[in-house]
Amino acid sequence: MLEALLSPTLLPGEQERPQRLLDAMRYAALDGGKRLRPFLVIESAALFGASGSGVLRAACALELVHCYSLVHDDLPAMDDDDLRRGKPTVHRAFDEATAILAGDGLLTYAFDVMADPATHPDAAVRCELALGLARASGLGGMAGGQMLDLAAEAAGIALSRAEIEQLQAMKTGALLRFGAEAGAIFARADAHERAALIAYGQALGAAFQIADDILDAEGDEAAMGKRVAKDAGRNKGTLVGALGIEAARKLRDELAQQAVDALAPFGARANVLVQAARFTAQRAH
Amino acid sequence: MLEALLSPTLLPGEQERPQRLLDAMRYAALDGGKRLRPFLVIESAALFGASGSGVLRAACALELVHCYSLVHDDLPAMDDDDLRRGKPTVHRAFDEATAILAGDGLLTYAFDVMADPATHPDAAVRCELALGLARASGLGGMAGGQMLDLAAEAAGIALSRAEIEQLQAMKTGALLRFGAEAGAIFARADAHERAALIAYGQALGAAFQIADDILDAEGDEAAMGKRVAKDAGRNKGTLVGALGIEAARKLRDELAQQAVDALAPFGARANVLVQAARFTAQRAH
Repeated sequence: MLEALLSPTLLPGEQERPQRLLDAMRYAALDGGKRLRPFLVIESAALFGASGSGVLRAACALELVHCYSLVHDDLPAMDDDDLRRGKPTVHRAFDEATAILAGDGLLTYAFDVMADPATHPDAAVRCELALGLARASGLGGMAGGQMLDLAAEAAGIALSRAEIEQLQAMKTGALLRFGAEAGAIFARADAHERAALIAYGQALGAAFQIADDILDAEGDEAAMGKRVAKDAGRNKGTLVGALGIEAARKLRDELAQQAVDALAPFGARANVLVQAARFTAQRAH
Repeated sequence: MLEALLSPTLLPGEQERPQRLLDAMRYAALDGGKRLRPFLVIESAALFGASGSGVLRAACALELVHCYSLVHDDLPAMDDDDLRRGKPTVHRAFDEATAILAGDGLLTYAFDVMADPATHPDAAVRCELALGLARASGLGGMAGGQMLDLAAEAAGIALSRAEIEQLQAMKTGALLRFGAEAGAIFARADAHERAALIAYGQALGAAFQIADDILDAEGDEAAMGKRVAKDAGRNKGTLVGALGIEAARKLRDELAQQAVDALAPFGARANVLVQAARFTAQRAH
């Protein structure tokens, strides 16, 4: 579906097509990634028997936002990364201006996809999805979390545990939480079911981030031959740095269990989401 | 309304607020600008008797997109501008990472505002507004036009008249056209009325861009003491460069008249929009 949404014929019949921009958007969004966010949309919708191209479109809209955020985060002015998923980052493969525009284009297209009647017959549902996506992605969500992260790094401040939890709930947690919630919105689930999925997505998101940070720390350990987790300053933006690796591991497992517990109302129907939480706690990439 | 939408209390009660990001978004969006795009939304809605906070919200959503585009266009990797509206650009006043995020935050917030029930009681209208905004802003609209502009400049290619018209219809025309159309969407105008406003917005957008380019060229003339319009290569992305200043002036006036003519179905009700087209043809800033 993502391939179809970013089809090379997306811009038919124009005299002059911004082909380079479409190429960069395709490069950024296709071919790679865990697809955890769209997985959450699809599986949470499936809990209520919802499936089909509309659900896939909503899932893709969320993935488009995730992909845009990677393109912009990789920029020289941000994290300045040369590689992403084993390939040159967008600003390396194209150029910086094209990467900025490709991120902008992906973000904009996410709302195009979400608001389009093809995504859901009920406009109220489409609006709620678009609104939820905007809230998860903007100032109070992902973009705000990235700002907190950059600001803390620039100031050289070691954040408290509560501050790190807040930052990560915004920077990575908000999109994952919305992924789980989106299925409930799509299927017009009742308030209890929706709250259960929000709780699941929230706990899963927090567990995911810690698991990711543990993998980074352990990777570093192997590479550097020392326990980098001792050096809390180096990991100041992570709970591994703030708590140490053992306590972080314990917290990760508790959060994964919280995520599983939140699914109790759905019984065996939620098995795939339960497995996802367990899998996330075991490994992140 | 824009001030209210970007209130300093937009992020209440959070443990840790990305204050710097909100500050940069406010800096970029408040205090300045012609507000031509929200004017078009408000006046086109007024044709059908629609007014009030919902119309203002829709108008602000469009202005948020315009403001985001200025922030990103000013970045070092794009046009590398230090001044905007007589103040340091966002990446100068803050820093580059914050400017990228502020643009992202404004763009995202535009869809938040549009999709919010406070903008219109009918979700179908909100979706149509959000969809129209996304189409005008993305790959097939503003972002795509900016890509064409950058690509032509990088390649050192002189564009044909048709290519310049296409580029400008996307880069600046799409948002202006949508501004005029948005009032019709908001007021659920019939297809004829909507088509008339689209035609108006399209002609106005083209006239506006030429008027802007003429002002630039005349400004340069005064400063440089020579007719820069002779040097078509220098203005390769503009119709002033492609046609010469006199032919461009004539085309600008024809387009303004086309815009006025498109409003004929509305009679005297459209006087404010008629005046806007005439004013645009006289001067752009």
